[in-house]
Amino acid sequence: MEARRVEALADGVFAIAMTLLVLELHVPQLATSTPEGELMQGLLHAWPNFLTYAGTFLLLGVLWIGHHNQFHYVRRVNRRFLWLNILFLMCAGFMPFCTALLGTYIHSRVAATLYGVSIFTTTLVLYAIWRYAARNGLLSHEATPEVVRAAGDRILIGLAGLVVGLGVSLVNAPMGLVVYIAVPLSYLRQSEIDRHLTAGHAHDAQ
Amino acid sequence: MEARRVEALADGVFAIAMTLLVLELHVPQLATSTPEGELMQGLLHAWPNFLTYAGTFLLLGVLWIGHHNQFHYVRRVNRRFLWLNILFLMCAGFMPFCTALLGTYIHSRVAATLYGVSIFTTTLVLYAIWRYAARNGLLSHEATPEVVRAAGDRILIGLAGLVVGLGVSLVNAPMGLVVYIAVPLSYLRQSEIDRHLTAGHAHDAQ
Amino acid sequence: MEARRVEALADGVFAIAMTLLVLELHVPQLATSTPEGELMQGLLHAWPNFLTYAGTFLLLGVLWIGHHNQFHYVRRVNRRFLWLNILFLMCAGFMPFCTALLGTYIHSRVAATLYGVSIFTTTLVLYAIWRYAARNGLLSHEATPEVVRAAGDRILIGLAGLVVGLGVSLVNAPMGLVVYIAVPLSYLRQSEIDRHLTAGHAHDAQ
Amino acid sequence: MEARRVEALADGVFAIAMTLLVLELHVPQLATSTPEGELMQGLLHAWPNFLTYAGTFLLLGVLWIGHHNQFHYVRRVNRRFLWLNILFLMCAGFMPFCTALLGTYIHSRVAATLYGVSIFTTTLVLYAIWRYAARNGLLSHEATPEVVRAAGDRILIGLAGLVVGLGVSLVNAPMGLVVYIAVPLSYLRQSEIDRHLTAGHAHDAQ
Repeated sequence: MEARRVEALADGVFAIAMTLLVLELHVPQLATSTPEGELMQGLLHAWPNFLTYAGTFLLLGVLWIGHHNQFHYVRRVNRRFLWLNILFLMCAGFMPFCTALLGTYIHSRVAATLYGVSIFTTTLVLYAIWRYAARNGLLSHEATPEVVRAAGDRILIGLAGLVVGLGVSLVNAPMGLVVYIAVPLSYLRQSEIDRHLTAGHAHDAQ
Repeated sequence: MEARRVEALADGVFAIAMTLLVLELHVPQLATSTPEGELMQGLLHAWPNFLTYAGTFLLLGVLWIGHHNQFHYVRRVNRRFLWLNILFLMCAGFMPFCTALLGTYIHSRVAATLYGVSIFTTTLVLYAIWRYAARNGLLSHEATPEVVRAAGDRILIGLAGLVVGLGVSLVNAPMGLVVYIAVPLSYLRQSEIDRHLTAGHAHDAQ
Repeated sequence: MEARRVEALADGVFAIAMTLLVLELHVPQLATSTPEGELMQGLLHAWPNFLTYAGTFLLLGVLWIGHHNQFHYVRRVNRRFLWLNILFLMCAGFMPFCTALLGTYIHSRVAATLYGVSIFTTTLVLYAIWRYAARNGLLSHEATPEVVRAAGDRILIGLAGLVVGLGVSLVNAPMGLVVYIAVPLSYLRQSEIDRHLTAGHAHDAQ
Repeated sequence: MEARRVEALADGVFAIAMTLLVLELHVPQLATSTPEGELMQGLLHAWPNFLTYAGTFLLLGVLWIGHHNQFHYVRRVNRRFLWLNILFLMCAGFMPFCTALLGTYIHSRVAATLYGVSIFTTTLVLYAIWRYAARNGLLSHEATPEVVRAAGDRILIGLAGLVVGLGVSLVNAPMGLVVYIAVPLSYLRQSEIDRHLTAGHAHDAQ
């Protein structure tokens, strides 16, 4: 069994889940026929939907990049690994619902908690995939113990950030969303893994 | 004609059908503006939708893995084989409707039966694809008679499980759904095919 | 510019257009809570939606196979060729709307005509792609004049069948749909092109 | 990290965003049961939806071709480059909403402006991706300074056209849409880049 098709399914599910988010943005239904002011107000009123669209797109983006980086090292797959991936995709595929819920009820702690628990679970499964692959010899020799530890630690830091977001959301739901979105943005900085990969590619190119 | 593009279309249809399932989860429409208790109740009330989401995701996952494993052996395709694959995708693409129907009417035997017949038909077509490929010389030499029989038998066992689920659903619809979901979960255990594939890959890696 | 990514986009659009068809199947909204008889009637009443789902899935399937077969011969692409492909995908991507319209108004000649014109136009663009590629040297040497003519003729025969369907739909809309669906089914028989391809692959395998 | 999977995600998001556009075309809900005249009128009345469907499909098509052409030269990627791509996809994935809004309120300057700003931003991010890749050594040696400049200039010309469209839309919203659509159509003509690519491929084929 090749890792290639798992990547294809994952790319598909992520592309679709990310694109489906737009379906939760609804055209305001207005009474008048030339509704400039009313339409502007309707759009401004829908700010939670735009914010959750952008936030979930970023969160799914960082998860996709994480999965993408892991598969750089995956050399073979087995059935349990496939199932962990399907569980991962099931959690990621659930995010559009959480996004719609939070976009509709932005001040609800219930909605913010469900959103946070879902993104936390998805990230946790990504961590489980990495640990499972490392412990069961599914990774290539490029995945040295240092790489395995560093990549795992990066996910753990993200999980810690999401737990903080969950705590904040119990006090103030929109603020919790801001923390959730801040987590992927913090990944923008270059990391040890990146340097390893860049070095490896630079080496390949020589 | 290459098998590669059939795989791409199949990956696409499965990724989309699996991801579209989330569209059947609707945000509860509530009267009050800060609806914590009401929202929690609305979500708990929607348990059939969450259960059918997870169940169909798993069922489509196991079908995708099965198709994926078959294509490990497919070396060439012909027109009839392509059409069997399109029929397979048509059946798989129909599952989101059955999922929405059963999620809405979880106690309906009509909904549970349509769901069961649909997943049974999809699995049956997967079996027909395998048999057709084996009988018409579309498989590689790796597909020894033992592999062909073992892979076919695994699908037949799944079909038997789905027939049991259909029988149960005529008595109790939600219980039938539980049986349907139990079928893919039973595939989690390693199988003869897996061992063959793992052995083959281990051999490749040497 | 490589043909590979055009194929990827086409596979994506077809997979999505085919899978989106299921969204046009709506769960019947019923009054009673244990609605066995009512639900059964609601489903039987929706037969036009199920028929158009299956029919469009088949029609898009045959167009996808046709496009797939063409790309077996495409060796390079240019900008005009890309645009013809985007036009092709635009037409194919329009089919879910025509399907929903005809599924809702199965006896309407307007709906049947729009459906027929859309599928005719999509097929015509597929023919234009093939002719353009042949005349501008985008095909490989495998595409002998005989192959180019035979493949073109097959599309022309399909176009003729769709014109017959259009004529029938002006008299009786559902009967016109039956003719439209009969066209792709007629492609099930093996053709000269298939024999060429099979022979080529058999040769490759030796 | 390979460029291949970024391409796969981009192909997926574009294929989905383009195909989702059809979901914004709604079947007219009519009172009578054999509604030939009424249905025809309903369809004619929906011309803004059909126009925005075709227009956005073309605009996303030209952006996809542009992205596709860029990746012909991309030899390696880094984290910032990945994030620019996700930002690009986030903007492209937002277009179905703008399309639905403008299709519903075709005479609204607010809707036309949001549409124009969104497509302008998406194109601007495509320009940023190209500049970033060129300045950070992510391109292959084929991307000579002439190619980098010519490809950048082509995007700048498109951006200038979109600014004109934005200005027009403030006076007359539907006319602004016509300008937006005219921009991708102007790309149909062969360009310097195409000639370079065609020459390169012709060379490869020798």
